[in-house]
Amino acid sequence: MLESDFKYIIDTFFSLFSMTLIILMVPGFAMLEAGLVRAKNVTAVLTINTLIYAIASIAFLLIGYDIAFGTWENDSMSKWAAFLFQMAFVGKTINIMSGGVSERVRIIPVAIFALIMGGAIYPFIVNISWGADIFAGTIFDIDMYDLAGSTVIHSTGGWALLATLIIMGSRKGRYGKDGSVRVIPASNIPLVFLGAFLLWIGWFGFNGGSVGSISSIENADAVAKTIMNTNTAGLAGAIIATLVMYARYKLFDITMILNGALGGLVAVTAGPDLYDAYTPILIGAVGGALVILAVPLFDKFKLDDPVGALSVHLVNGIWGTLAVGIFVSDVSFMSQLKGVLIVGAIVFPVSLTVVYVINKLIAFTADADEQLQGMDLVECGVESYPEFRKTI
Amino acid sequence: MLESDFKYIIDTFFSLFSMTLIILMVPGFAMLEAGLVRAKNVTAVLTINTLIYAIASIAFLLIGYDIAFGTWENDSMSKWAAFLFQMAFVGKTINIMSGGVSERVRIIPVAIFALIMGGAIYPFIVNISWGADIFAGTIFDIDMYDLAGSTVIHSTGGWALLATLIIMGSRKGRYGKDGSVRVIPASNIPLVFLGAFLLWIGWFGFNGGSVGSISSIENADAVAKTIMNTNTAGLAGAIIATLVMYARYKLFDITMILNGALGGLVAVTAGPDLYDAYTPILIGAVGGALVILAVPLFDKFKLDDPVGALSVHLVNGIWGTLAVGIFVSDVSFMSQLKGVLIVGAIVFPVSLTVVYVINKLIAFTADADEQLQGMDLVECGVESYPEFRKTI
Amino acid sequence: MLESDFKYIIDTFFSLFSMTLIILMVPGFAMLEAGLVRAKNVTAVLTINTLIYAIASIAFLLIGYDIAFGTWENDSMSKWAAFLFQMAFVGKTINIMSGGVSERVRIIPVAIFALIMGGAIYPFIVNISWGADIFAGTIFDIDMYDLAGSTVIHSTGGWALLATLIIMGSRKGRYGKDGSVRVIPASNIPLVFLGAFLLWIGWFGFNGGSVGSISSIENADAVAKTIMNTNTAGLAGAIIATLVMYARYKLFDITMILNGALGGLVAVTAGPDLYDAYTPILIGAVGGALVILAVPLFDKFKLDDPVGALSVHLVNGIWGTLAVGIFVSDVSFMSQLKGVLIVGAIVFPVSLTVVYVINKLIAFTADADEQLQGMDLVECGVESYPEFRKTI
Repeated sequence: MLESDFKYIIDTFFSLFSMTLIILMVPGFAMLEAGLVRAKNVTAVLTINTLIYAIASIAFLLIGYDIAFGTWENDSMSKWAAFLFQMAFVGKTINIMSGGVSERVRIIPVAIFALIMGGAIYPFIVNISWGADIFAGTIFDIDMYDLAGSTVIHSTGGWALLATLIIMGSRKGRYGKDGSVRVIPASNIPLVFLGAFLLWIGWFGFNGGSVGSISSIENADAVAKTIMNTNTAGLAGAIIATLVMYARYKLFDITMILNGALGGLVAVTAGPDLYDAYTPILIGAVGGALVILAVPLFDKFKLDDPVGALSVHLVNGIWGTLAVGIFVSDVSFMSQLKGVLIVGAIVFPVSLTVVYVINKLIAFTADADEQLQGMDLVECGVESYPEFRKTI
Repeated sequence: MLESDFKYIIDTFFSLFSMTLIILMVPGFAMLEAGLVRAKNVTAVLTINTLIYAIASIAFLLIGYDIAFGTWENDSMSKWAAFLFQMAFVGKTINIMSGGVSERVRIIPVAIFALIMGGAIYPFIVNISWGADIFAGTIFDIDMYDLAGSTVIHSTGGWALLATLIIMGSRKGRYGKDGSVRVIPASNIPLVFLGAFLLWIGWFGFNGGSVGSISSIENADAVAKTIMNTNTAGLAGAIIATLVMYARYKLFDITMILNGALGGLVAVTAGPDLYDAYTPILIGAVGGALVILAVPLFDKFKLDDPVGALSVHLVNGIWGTLAVGIFVSDVSFMSQLKGVLIVGAIVFPVSLTVVYVINKLIAFTADADEQLQGMDLVECGVESYPEFRKTI
Repeated sequence: MLESDFKYIIDTFFSLFSMTLIILMVPGFAMLEAGLVRAKNVTAVLTINTLIYAIASIAFLLIGYDIAFGTWENDSMSKWAAFLFQMAFVGKTINIMSGGVSERVRIIPVAIFALIMGGAIYPFIVNISWGADIFAGTIFDIDMYDLAGSTVIHSTGGWALLATLIIMGSRKGRYGKDGSVRVIPASNIPLVFLGAFLLWIGWFGFNGGSVGSISSIENADAVAKTIMNTNTAGLAGAIIATLVMYARYKLFDITMILNGALGGLVAVTAGPDLYDAYTPILIGAVGGALVILAVPLFDKFKLDDPVGALSVHLVNGIWGTLAVGIFVSDVSFMSQLKGVLIVGAIVFPVSLTVVYVINKLIAFTADADEQLQGMDLVECGVESYPEFRKTI
């Protein structure tokens, strides 16, 4: 057998393996969000997650992949496997956005946004970061190192969320006139845990698969190191979040601990193959701490994000991308910063415009009565747990 | 290393990978069904799913595999891996049947049926479709293309369900004397979502693994294309179900959307390796639409199937098998039709007879009082959620 | 390509695949335990499971792996993959311990214990069983066959649990003064099922990956056979537990059935590569029966283990290790027994001492009022299901 055939076969298999883990993040996001919102909004969240996967993936198949890469040809693995791996990413950017506007967002505007994000905005960002690169040779040429998308995926989703939050405003009753913040408790903690760990495991495919090949000694090492470092950053994020919250409140705050882990995972995503085995402890710890610092900060600005997605994905997407410039000597900090800024300077205003226009046609935000009733009844006509008597 | 050794190793690994994904469908079916039934029947559903996996797999190990294939010898991969992959399928046919008779079926008759289905009926269908083929050279020789079992698995399970439904009748209170249908709401929507997506991900192994080998360029392409097309049909099924239900009711019906996705997945299962990248959109869309059309139709005939298994598995198993004959020029429509008919002509009457006989010995259907009390207390002596006060 | 390169690549990939399955056991244990305890203790259980994974894994990275193996060098696969596979095991020993002291254990003492177990006790047991072996050539030299840890993992966790139970005592209200045992029902049966099957699937990686290589015909066969036999023992454990419980109570007891399956899985773990295809039926059946016999026995001694971990892991860890000596002619029963005894003679007193000392500093056991209130409110300040009215 030719060595090139061997590599083609192994890398196709490895890409399919990685893709499968990433698709586990579909129930991952869904369970996390379904657990964090109130019972009256659970089915709406699950419906949105289903439609994001369906619409964004089809849009990416029909047009997005061409925009991103310009060609389906691939000599190093099956072109279908290469597509599937990339397709597995696309919904994530919209999951990040939709999670953060839970409990008052209507389904149709999100579905339209998913179509545009999956078919155009995200593919364009991939184009200039990882793909065909229409900016090559211009001053907008991005030369950032971002292995698996701290910026390309997580900040992109985060900027879109920020834009949407600005247009939509907060949930009815979240902020008092005196600036107080009403705590709205998560309805189902086991789902939060399950979702967080499905995401965590999916991340092994997300980051490991982004190495792109496992079919040489060097690449096998790079994949394994990437997965190890990815995991380590998640561990460190969880531990720091535990310690900070315990120091402050003498309580173990499971949603913050899990969000701390996710923050660490986002933060390591830009360069997990480049670090030694210990640096991810630091990167993840900072990531976990940033989540805890950022959550109340966003509340100060009345950016009402029920799942902490801005803190996990936007803040740590930026931190993680810059961290590569800080901790890896071969990578220029300025290139990383430039990448972060260019992506933000594209995604934020474009999302703001798109959401603004959609919002004029079909309002993103349910009105106060509908929010009180819950999005499940309003949008889906069902209750998520019809037999369990509610206290809220 | 010999090329044949390489192939043996890779295909063993790939088969184990695929098998693992398929086993995820055990919690997949279980969570889907546990979410769709009322809280008082959840533990019974979970118990049945556990026993189906245990009994059908042991029966297949002890006798079924020999009936299906006649030999354990295998030169192309480890014979144990080949067995495991096939074993992972067997319970599915009974899952399909048991899901559709939820909320009133007793456990012991299902367990006996699982033994006979897993040890004899299903292995016989495999024998004449994929296996040793005792019908070879006779006029019953099946020459259908059915890569991963639209007919062999899904229709088989569907015919068995139809037979069982005819003998068992509907749930107490489901149909009014005036022909009205009482809606019985799902008790736990997050479980429905989780189950559907575990099934979806399992399908990658189900269909991808059915290619049988990944160890050549051609096979690696076939596997990747199979998984891509499988996924695409699921996406299309979900989208069509969304649109049709929204057009009709101005609501997003998550259980129909997810069943639409599953219908698309069943429909593509006969020939995912043979289609181009766009045909599965059509096949899946028709599959999703068929689910929505078929559910009320079966209710007209008082075939009371709480999870929609007839629509998802029987209708789409038939549609998917015929679709190969329609969309693939090398495949004869008449051969596909003949395969569908022969399998139905065997499985339906045999299941009817087996269920009839078991039913004479031990009634399949719980009586009205027991149904009112719920199968959990009657069969398992526990409540599934003892601390959550019930409103139903 | 060199054959050694091929092997390195494939075995790295296979190890990462196996590791991923084992990490699925993190949500596996968590869902199982969260389902088995009362609703007021669910978040505490989930928090403990998160911290065990975080702390034990970091401790293993920083010190434990060096204690166990003495070196990170590895010629046969990526050293990072070899580490990850071993790291995936370490939390399990503490999961076993923490599960069995649920509903009254405080979080901080468990976290400290996780640090010591993951950083020192478990690595030492690995050292003398699978690793660098500081006892080599002494009379304490262990010559036991224990492929994937019936003793090294499961008994180790079980001995630690026994020690902790002795120091902590039972839950308030579990045992009446007359010796009666109050049944405390599981709060969420679907989570129990989901957790059990995530564990079951994780076991394929646990045992299959423990073969250490898939990159030859012989090893591919050994891996596939290991996974097949692992699964078979689980099937048999479930079936026996079903039959025994039904014979006794005329009811299907799902938690016992699933614990029977887990008992079978633990029992086969010492030698799944060595058995023919039928012996695991016997080993798993005995394992399932032992669970049912042992659960009431431990209650007689007021060892209050809400999840049955002593029966599943300690009893079957011992049984499974001895079974290799009974059923495999090349393996000495006395060597197996010696291994069991030496590991027990180390882990039990060391754990007793460590837990005793921690307990003097920070009490492991919540007081009666706190237990009444529930560990969620006391330790985490939240309710797991705040909107579902409680009947208990």
